[in-house]
Amino acid sequence: MYKSKFISLALVLACSTSFASTDLVKKAKDSGLKAIPADKVELMKLIDDPKDPITDAKVELGKKLFFDPRLSRSGLISCNTCHNLGMGGDDGVPAAIGHKWTANPHHLNSPTVYNSVFFTAQFWDGRSPHLADQAQGPMQAAPEMAAPANLVKERIVSIPEYVAEFKIAYGDDVNITFEKIATTIATFEKILVTPSKFDDFLNGDVKALNDAEQKGLNTFIDKGCASCHNGIALGGTMQPFELAGKYKFADVGDFKGDDKGMVKTPTLRNITETGPYFHNGAVWALTDAIKEMGSIQLGIKITDAQADEMLTFLKALKGRKPAIIYPQLPEESATTPKPTFD
Amino acid sequence: MYKSKFISLALVLACSTSFASTDLVKKAKDSGLKAIPADKVELMKLIDDPKDPITDAKVELGKKLFFDPRLSRSGLISCNTCHNLGMGGDDGVPAAIGHKWTANPHHLNSPTVYNSVFFTAQFWDGRSPHLADQAQGPMQAAPEMAAPANLVKERIVSIPEYVAEFKIAYGDDVNITFEKIATTIATFEKILVTPSKFDDFLNGDVKALNDAEQKGLNTFIDKGCASCHNGIALGGTMQPFELAGKYKFADVGDFKGDDKGMVKTPTLRNITETGPYFHNGAVWALTDAIKEMGSIQLGIKITDAQADEMLTFLKALKGRKPAIIYPQLPEESATTPKPTFD
Repeated sequence: MYKSKFISLALVLACSTSFASTDLVKKAKDSGLKAIPADKVELMKLIDDPKDPITDAKVELGKKLFFDPRLSRSGLISCNTCHNLGMGGDDGVPAAIGHKWTANPHHLNSPTVYNSVFFTAQFWDGRSPHLADQAQGPMQAAPEMAAPANLVKERIVSIPEYVAEFKIAYGDDVNITFEKIATTIATFEKILVTPSKFDDFLNGDVKALNDAEQKGLNTFIDKGCASCHNGIALGGTMQPFELAGKYKFADVGDFKGDDKGMVKTPTLRNITETGPYFHNGAVWALTDAIKEMGSIQLGIKITDAQADEMLTFLKALKGRKPAIIYPQLPEESATTPKPTFD
Repeated sequence: MYKSKFISLALVLACSTSFASTDLVKKAKDSGLKAIPADKVELMKLIDDPKDPITDAKVELGKKLFFDPRLSRSGLISCNTCHNLGMGGDDGVPAAIGHKWTANPHHLNSPTVYNSVFFTAQFWDGRSPHLADQAQGPMQAAPEMAAPANLVKERIVSIPEYVAEFKIAYGDDVNITFEKIATTIATFEKILVTPSKFDDFLNGDVKALNDAEQKGLNTFIDKGCASCHNGIALGGTMQPFELAGKYKFADVGDFKGDDKGMVKTPTLRNITETGPYFHNGAVWALTDAIKEMGSIQLGIKITDAQADEMLTFLKALKGRKPAIIYPQLPEESATTPKPTFD
């Protein structure tokens, strides 16, 4: 009798947890949060371009280019230098440091490349519509990789193994332009998708998030965070942002956002790995960033306890990274333009 | 009758090639060239230290440290920056560029880390006896990673996942010192061994090198190159070197070698991937380097045809690299010392 009572109680508790979790899944979806699809076909619908489909050959070539420092003027800086795939997809410093040890002149923080395929705009001011366009920027920017487009192209077409791989990826009549190089890098970046426990939860495994993580998610929604941090990326869209005045952490630089003063909302995926935070990398502690956003963006006070609750949820957004074999880069030839350091 | 004659001739040719190859194997071994053992037990005898044996846990931890830019003052420069495992184990520029974009003050070229376990001395001036000692240098050197030993240690011990991994690798009572960090990096570096067709040839597969490669090897020995480029590394020992005067390619810098003017002979393994050449990275074309060495070191003229023959052999020293999964680096904590850029 005692035993059967105990079982009944346990069943009731289990059902109530399950019901509550199901409610929370609905609440999360209603507030605009979306999962990375567990189904590969569904995922491909979101990230693939039928006009230039993702193939193994393009991804492998794009990976080599992403890791190749010879895309920079000096031969020392690769995409991975600032978007380090072992460090949450960024560099872990407040503002990017590039060619000739030049700090980003607008003191802008390198955003993560992971899940950037889900962003509706690229760069902090959203000036780029997609990754293939974005990838052209840092290679050429003087304080970043500092390589003119024609130098990048000349380096690549002078390396026979790269030429062969472009032909395998795109056909024998491929025209290896700077744009094609950037597009191929973007194709690799598209697969840098990191499903997490949060996705498992939204996709139906209601036990994927524990009670504390669910509580944190609930607080996150109730406080209004999902009004900007929504969609699959929990960010990646342009939103109004208080750049001046109220900004407690100094040194906002001369960054003004886009022509409407809008700023791209950073993704919250893998956020525990991508500090320091904000466009100027001014804040190191994630709980400080949470409270600051409450104050500046939502006009509310977030208590330490609430920030800790949300931190527990944010930790659950740490995703499973695709395994990446470090690439063996092809040898250059006698005609490959040499690195220069000035 | 015609057919049987043809078969006999083919057999004679096959035997004569085989005999000649066997002779060449003997000649190579007699001239001091050695293979990387094909047998793993034999290899381990050469690279392992019974007092601190190589284990999977140490190698995995050492790999993370090797790729972790937080071992540098700026948080931007890792061991892999100058010893890029995708580029033959070096950086592909004449002289290393480090913290604050500082060129190596002695204009010294970064040597490859691949097969460096077989070197009898480390650094160009041979001042370091082994990798665990060598690894302490660049982390601390002001123009390289610029991180004082205590900063490196503080960064690592502030990262809980690193502390846990050190305990797994060395036991719960491990003392995570700067020296222990360097030693762990060295343990990873020990496994960076790249067997090639040349090793297969010396190890008994006489068809592993084709006729042109065997001809190049024969010329290499006949010209006396193996008098310095010998042993398993085809280099890695201290040898007399003409640093001044006769050196055709300018800018030898102020490097003087060790106290006897001796310089570490670079390994020839993966040499096609590790240009530019010499301690000052002054020469980009490998055939130029071959001819220059004939002139300066051996006092002989090497013709273009002979240099080409030897180049064919040197290409066969390109080794099979161990597959390396790019590591996911552990998250820092609130107490992790921040990067600085001055």
